[in-house]
This record gives sequence, C-alpha cells and structure tokens, in this order.
Amino acid sequence: MIKGKVIGKVWSTRHVDTVPNGALLEVDASGQTIIAFDPLGCATGETVLITQGSVAAGFFTKAKAPIDALIIGSIDDN
Amino acid sequence: MIKGKVIGKVWSTRHVDTVPNGALLEVDASGQTIIAFDPLGCATGETVLITQGSVAAGFFTKAKAPIDALIIGSIDDN
Amino acid sequence: MIKGKVIGKVWSTRHVDTVPNGALLEVDASGQTIIAFDPLGCATGETVLITQGSVAAGFFTKAKAPIDALIIGSIDDN
Amino acid sequence: MIKGKVIGKVWSTRHVDTVPNGALLEVDASGQTIIAFDPLGCATGETVLITQGSVAAGFFTKAKAPIDALIIGSIDDN
Amino acid sequence: MIKGKVIGKVWSTRHVDTVPNGALLEVDASGQTIIAFDPLGCATGETVLITQGSVAAGFFTKAKAPIDALIIGSIDDN
Repeated sequence: MIKGKVIGKVWSTRHVDTVPNGALLEVDASGQTIIAFDPLGCATGETVLITQGSVAAGFFTKAKAPIDALIIGSIDDN
Repeated sequence: MIKGKVIGKVWSTRHVDTVPNGALLEVDASGQTIIAFDPLGCATGETVLITQGSVAAGFFTKAKAPIDALIIGSIDDN
Repeated sequence: MIKGKVIGKVWSTRHVDTVPNGALLEVDASGQTIIAFDPLGCATGETVLITQGSVAAGFFTKAKAPIDALIIGSIDDN
Repeated sequence: MIKGKVIGKVWSTRHVDTVPNGALLEVDASGQTIIAFDPLGCATGETVLITQGSVAAGFFTKAKAPIDALIIGSIDDN
Repeated sequence: MIKGKVIGKVWSTRHVDTVPNGALLEVDASGQTIIAFDPLGCATGETVLITQGSVAAGFFTKAKAPIDALIIGSIDDN
C-alpha cells in the first residue's frame, strides 16, 4: 500500500455507469496525485492508506467496479 | 485512478481482433502519455479520470478485451 | 519482488472491515516508502522481500483482503 | 496502453515451456525498453500500441502464457 | 516483459510457507533491482527476460505462489 494526504475531491457528473456512488478523493502520495475511492469519509488533510489495482476493485462485491485505487484506512497521528 | 487531459486520438487500422470498436484517446497524465479507451465520447482538452490494469479490461463484458486503460469519467470544471 | 528495509509501523484505527488483523510495516525500498502487511513478525531494520499487487492479496485465503503489498520473507544477512 | 517504437527483436533459445511461439520485440516507450509479444508481425521502426499486465496474458486462450506485454495494434501514420 | 542482468542471489531462511522452492535471483533492470524467481538455473551475468505481476504467479500451478516476478527466458547473445 502507499500512504498519502487527502488534498481535495473530484466531481464527475458524466461517468461510466459502473462507477460506485461515493467520494473520489484526490490524494498526494509523495508528490504523485492519485484519485482514490473513499468508503470511510476522510477529510482533506487526513493521512490515508491506499491499495491499488484489481485488489481495490475487489472491495466492491455487488457489481464490477472500475476502481483501481481505494482508501482502506486512515493513518493514526503519532 | 489518475487524472489527465485528452490531447488527441490514436488510429490503428491493423490491430488484434479483440480490440473493441471505439475511440482510443491520447491522454497526458502529469507528463506521461497514456492511450485509453473512451466509452464516453470525450473531446480534446477535456480532463478525464482513467482506471488502469485488469480493472479497465473488466469493463468489457461481451468478450475479453486487451484494454489496460479506460476513461471512466469526465472531471467537472471547478 | 523488491527488497526493502523496515523503517516503522503504521497504525490505522479507522479502517475498512476487510483489512486483516496484523502488522502494517513501513518499508523503504530504494527510497520509495511502501506499506506492507507482515505475516512474519519482522523488526525495524530488517531487510525484507515484498510481493505486490493481486499476488499479495492472494495470500489471504479466508476472506478477500484489500492488501496489495506483502512481506514474504526476511532476507538473510550475508 | 502505451505507445512505443519497435527497435529490435529478442531471441531466447532457453526459456520456460509456456512462452508462446512468436516474436518478442524490443520496444522503446518514452525511453523505457519493454519486451512485448507481437502477434501482428510488426517491423523495426513501426509505432505500436502495447497493453500490459494480466490483460496481455489474457490474449492467449489455449494455455496460460507468461506474457505481461502485448502489441495490440500498429499505429497509423498521420 | 523487461530485460535485466543477473547480479546475485537472495537467501531467505525465514519466509512465508507458500514461497516455492527454488532460486530467487537479484536482477538489475535498467538500474532498478528486482528479485525474480528463476526456474531455469540462470547464472550471474546472464541477461534474462522477466515477467511481472499476477502473470508471474500464474506459472505456479500446484499451489498459489506469492511470486510477482519470474524469469521466463535467457536472452541469447548477439
């Protein structure tokens, strides 16, 4: 997994039908921007853990979701 | 997912049979060029959301498609 | 696989239900930080072998785990 | 997918049994060299479209092929 | 696939049970070090072809192997 900081939200009115309802967050991971699906309700500035690839899509069990990046946890502050 | 800007279209007359009919767009994602299948009819200059890997191929349900990059949404202007 | 050195541990109290119980270690792999699930009980400073992607998730057989990086071995000192 | 230019051919007499018969081309993709299986008979200097990962292996239907990069099309000259 | 040169061997006495018996070679691929499973008995200095991801794991048919990099061929000298 990779660690990143939530920097914003992405809105996409026109999208493929199979994109699940929910937030798509913009996450900065060591300078690289990743758009990840957020099932946890994370806030901007939060440090999160992201899983990628088919593993991320496997989280969605009702239908095949075209999601290749998923927030799986919020990292505790030290 | 990654965000990118559509910069053009790619034409391939000679291709593998299983490539689905439809547009293959050239997308600039932070300086890297990706060729993605576009099921939404995006235009040059549009900012799009791309999913990659086997997750992209999973979008095609009729036959196995050799597609590892798919536009899943057009990102709304702020 | 890639080789890396364990540099710390990550704690995530709020996480997706399917994250398996166990340690999530921070590993430095040639300057890139990866968070990997550790089934072996590795210590900080240890050099480890990491497998990535769906192969990492395949290690978990009871339920689908959203894990895309797994420590599969500790590398012997020369 | 990524675009690249064919720069040569790779020969491997000693290989794993499941490597399919056919050409393995050396392709330059933005300065990175990828070795891709070529089902189309592309020539040196040709610009090609490459799909990667398990999507590339999925092209081979008779047996499981250890191929993670496949040329799926030749890009038309403008 | 990628090309690389074998630069050494990695030993891991303490490892996950599902790591198959066999050699794990250290391969330099354009400056990046990859640890790949070697079913061919390659020697240090040899130029090899590596497949990655779930395609590499698919080579192992008896049990699920946590291997995401596999040497599939030795490249002939010109």
